Amino acid sequence: MSTAYADAPGAGAGRRDAEATRAAIMTAARHLLARHAHGDITLKAIAERAGVSPPLILKYFGNKDALFSRVMNFEADVEAFLDAPLHRLGAHMVRHVLTGHAERGADPVLRIVFAPLHGEQGEILRANFRSQVSGRLGERLTGEDAGLRAELAVSMLLGLGVMYGIARGPHVRATDIEEIVDRYAPAVQAHLTP
Amino acid sequence: MSTAYADAPGAGAGRRDAEATRAAIMTAARHLLARHAHGDITLKAIAERAGVSPPLILKYFGNKDALFSRVMNFEADVEAFLDAPLHRLGAHMVRHVLTGHAERGADPVLRIVFAPLHGEQGEILRANFRSQVSGRLGERLTGEDAGLRAELAVSMLLGLGVMYGIARGPHVRATDIEEIVDRYAPAVQAHLTP
Repeated sequence: MSTAYADAPGAGAGRRDAEATRAAIMTAARHLLARHAHGDITLKAIAERAGVSPPLILKYFGNKDALFSRVMNFEADVEAFLDAPLHRLGAHMVRHVLTGHAERGADPVLRIVFAPLHGEQGEILRANFRSQVSGRLGERLTGEDAGLRAELAVSMLLGLGVMYGIARGPHVRATDIEEIVDRYAPAVQAHLTP
Repeated sequence: MSTAYADAPGAGAGRRDAEATRAAIMTAARHLLARHAHGDITLKAIAERAGVSPPLILKYFGNKDALFSRVMNFEADVEAFLDAPLHRLGAHMVRHVLTGHAERGADPVLRIVFAPLHGEQGEILRANFRSQVSGRLGERLTGEDAGLRAELAVSMLLGLGVMYGIARGPHVRATDIEEIVDRYAPAVQAHLTP
């Protein structure tokens, strides 16, 4: 754990406002849920990584499972991911994924790849992904096979996130974001508005 | 563990030939490496899942790390993945990924997504991926930015594998493979032969 652990309960909260503390706890939970099975993650480990006390997590989220449910939910991230008119949504989604990785090491949808780690909680993650991500996009599409086209478009975004954030492809990471948008987005857009 | 555990050392080998036993051990190791951190996986757990005895794993692979090194290597899978002339390689790769999932629940390259679970071994997985998968493909391409184009093509295949095998997108799974090839492969091919 690279983050210092604040011994006194609530010590972290004294230095940050509530929103920043909640965000730090969510980030720590996300990090651990990408690396350990759900059942192996302790409240103490989340607290250490977030630099807060375990009781503070309980205060903000109720319990560990409630915190995990928040991480397993895409609602908060999908709004910005899908926030563009349909005719230029492909470019927006590609740019959004790439800037998230480049600037914050974050991806709005990539955590679906860790579903196999989490047993039954993984099924919740999958159900949320289908309804909140590919399902939500599909509702915006017109024409035939909207559901399939939405899944294929989202597939391309997931793959770009894997290449950039997990495989760390050296060419993708060294290339200007707008150049990748130019090369990659037309194929995404072709699924949205064929 | 759903697979029965053969108590007597070597009991599994009596019923199968060596190659099938090796394959079962590799499959068990892959399964566990997609769900648990490298350091948390015991030889006993791999043996139980493969339905063999722990000493048999040592006999075939030497030790646990040598077995994991095999799983972290893409050489054996990439040959079939890239086995098509360049002008129809896009369709081949899409079809190969989809049939692997549909028929065997296997993907030639998708295990790169579990790199974050495995600490230093994850770095080995990434290095192998770059040299054996996207690097190998890039060597076959001509024209400018071959390395980048190879990474973008592989991104699309990774994303399709995530959608089919991990997110389990219902539309993708319910659609005829050749229809998905028709819809998805042209964009992959456009990176290979622009």
